[in-house]
Amino acid sequence: MIQRPRGTRDFSPEEMKKRRLIEGKITDVCKRFGYREVATPTFEHAELFTRRSGTGIVKQMYTFLDKGGRELALRPEFTAQIMRFYESELRQLPKPLKLYYFGNCFRYEEPQKGRYREFWQFGAEAIGGSSPASDVEIISLAMACIRSMGIGNFELRIGHVGILKHILRKYNLNVEKQGALMPFIDKCDTTGLKNKLEEFKIPKNDSERLIEIVTSKEDISKLDALEKLLAEDKESLSMVSKWREMLVLLNAAGVTGYTIDIGIARGLDYYTGVVFEIDAASLGAEKQICGGGAYSLSEVFETEQPYATGFSIGFDRFILALESEGIKIDKKVNNVYVAPLVDGAKADAEVQKKAFELANALRTHGIPANIDIAGRNINKSLGYANTIGAKYAVIIGGNEIKKGVAIIKDMESGEQVEVKLKEVAAYLAKKFS
Amino acid sequence: MIQRPRGTRDFSPEEMKKRRLIEGKITDVCKRFGYREVATPTFEHAELFTRRSGTGIVKQMYTFLDKGGRELALRPEFTAQIMRFYESELRQLPKPLKLYYFGNCFRYEEPQKGRYREFWQFGAEAIGGSSPASDVEIISLAMACIRSMGIGNFELRIGHVGILKHILRKYNLNVEKQGALMPFIDKCDTTGLKNKLEEFKIPKNDSERLIEIVTSKEDISKLDALEKLLAEDKESLSMVSKWREMLVLLNAAGVTGYTIDIGIARGLDYYTGVVFEIDAASLGAEKQICGGGAYSLSEVFETEQPYATGFSIGFDRFILALESEGIKIDKKVNNVYVAPLVDGAKADAEVQKKAFELANALRTHGIPANIDIAGRNINKSLGYANTIGAKYAVIIGGNEIKKGVAIIKDMESGEQVEVKLKEVAAYLAKKFS
Repeated sequence: MIQRPRGTRDFSPEEMKKRRLIEGKITDVCKRFGYREVATPTFEHAELFTRRSGTGIVKQMYTFLDKGGRELALRPEFTAQIMRFYESELRQLPKPLKLYYFGNCFRYEEPQKGRYREFWQFGAEAIGGSSPASDVEIISLAMACIRSMGIGNFELRIGHVGILKHILRKYNLNVEKQGALMPFIDKCDTTGLKNKLEEFKIPKNDSERLIEIVTSKEDISKLDALEKLLAEDKESLSMVSKWREMLVLLNAAGVTGYTIDIGIARGLDYYTGVVFEIDAASLGAEKQICGGGAYSLSEVFETEQPYATGFSIGFDRFILALESEGIKIDKKVNNVYVAPLVDGAKADAEVQKKAFELANALRTHGIPANIDIAGRNINKSLGYANTIGAKYAVIIGGNEIKKGVAIIKDMESGEQVEVKLKEVAAYLAKKFS
Repeated sequence: MIQRPRGTRDFSPEEMKKRRLIEGKITDVCKRFGYREVATPTFEHAELFTRRSGTGIVKQMYTFLDKGGRELALRPEFTAQIMRFYESELRQLPKPLKLYYFGNCFRYEEPQKGRYREFWQFGAEAIGGSSPASDVEIISLAMACIRSMGIGNFELRIGHVGILKHILRKYNLNVEKQGALMPFIDKCDTTGLKNKLEEFKIPKNDSERLIEIVTSKEDISKLDALEKLLAEDKESLSMVSKWREMLVLLNAAGVTGYTIDIGIARGLDYYTGVVFEIDAASLGAEKQICGGGAYSLSEVFETEQPYATGFSIGFDRFILALESEGIKIDKKVNNVYVAPLVDGAKADAEVQKKAFELANALRTHGIPANIDIAGRNINKSLGYANTIGAKYAVIIGGNEIKKGVAIIKDMESGEQVEVKLKEVAAYLAKKFS
């Protein structure tokens, strides 16, 4: 039999109900913050993603030639797309632009729990604002999205790529060496860091101090230590001071309880300033469910870019986190099941006709109504109604038609009442209002 | 600059608002009929689509090898996927299954109005029911979806591929010849049909009669003519009689005003019985916006298949039809804009802090609140609030903080009131309840 491709998923009705519920909650939060939805194509010219230097993502891209010989790629992420859209069309709209998106991305990697070849991202971008207000807005929006389901133990870490680069420079590490160190910093890999710094001939004392700075996660007091460290570097001192200002505003926006983590390097090379990550404590090793920060894609588009900041939530991993916290989804379908009484093997045409009339009348009244389409006998039909979680059954047979009534059965209590055919819709409308 | 790939689209906030509104209306209808959503991967092993004989679609498929050398294809349609999902997992659920889906498909064809390389389909499948109830259900669901926006001039045509094949057989046209004729029948191409029938050496009288049968669109009385024509063919007479029964039930389900069109052949080869198409009168040549019918994919899965019937709506073309009928979308954003009073070039930190506190309080009360993140002066800020359609502005500056108030401005009337800081959220909550 033909199998589903490795690393992809089908979603059952129950799964989709859960996913739509969570999507809806996050969407509501974005709207409440004044963000508006945009969407972009599933594939792009590959160079949109390959031009910037983040090689990790490029290696995992699904690329292919179209019939015209152009190299296309299934999108591995959204930000580059949104900025392409911005460059070509959205820049005409009044700035700042506050945008959100929800869609699927593709990366060819080894599938494991919370890691799929087709996966979903929910994200937002604030384009054309300024710092620190934009940073505050984006971090507080991300936290509000993550908290939208009302459950879960989530940890926010805030860093600053600009300051991180200044610190590395202070230790005589040039741009190239910084690039080589970033993956180790990002993973908090102290052994890897130590080896690399040794290779770069950094004195042991400096190396130890540096590793301490980039791997320790502390509260806002860490900024004092950073200021001491950067005492003579005016540019980075001004960055730290602005960062402090941002954190005060962040408190005002209702976000507290984060840690300062200067070691957030992010996988993507386009970040420039404040960056942040959110972890789900329940997920173990693969716990990061959201990441973002201020970025610039001017190298891709060869134009000056507005101040931009954004984040994306790993939707699938977010769901895993909610599930491990015991998210509750109502499995009831909550509708009416119209069951024609079948006489022998075949449904009577007149009875079936009346059943369809009733279903149509119910739906016209806004009442969710399912109807038998399998021609089953009444016991099987009611059994099915029960399985799918119907709240009421409307039973109609030849005798009922003669009497001008239908039987309405409460599927939970088992109680049955006879209701005049013309009054069935009104009777049930009351139950569903 | 890097361009969007040909035949694909970006969707602006306004476009997305429209698309989500329509998606929501159709979704509501599906739920009201007791249908539940499923989703499937964006790509599949190519053979899922190539195994059945519909060559038109296969020629236009985006196929590519993954890094493991497997041939994958971006999905050109959904039905084969849903049935693969059914075969592997869904068959465990209580039958009949009533499912709907909404997603993007891909076909490499020349882009034109209403025809894109990435396009969206909304569809439903009823699996494991029986005829004629399943056919009635699916046609009435399709019509209810199409009518969900309450506007539009749509025409329903109903045919029967089984009977069509019997008629062709009656004129000594074997399966191979039938296959060659189908595209001409589907397009109502009388010249093409005539030439083909001549090539097949069908007598002129027969050829004319046949062309008349398959190209004329009439009311239910056409069935009488068909019955006469098929007088000695018991199998097809029984099909016509069942079809008649289906049409009676369809009336009961509230669907009237269709035409009988025996010339609906459908592009996909897996259809077996009742088929139908819905046209939008406003769209001209490319007017078909929905098609479906009873199908069997047993040749793909090499197992016996349950009775299945379904439809899909070309979502993009449906939107074009609604637009040509003058669909109205409320462009107002309907939220509050929090504007800190900026003194000179830079916003006062205390003022900005208070602004973020206010925005957070409003959002916590469920009030949609936008906030300045560009540090603009108050005139520019209110101008922006106006452009994005904000209903109220909340203005706060140093003086207001001293007085413990904020100014609330009705953006439509221009009226301003001073409200105590603690009462701003409650004051505005009343306006948004």
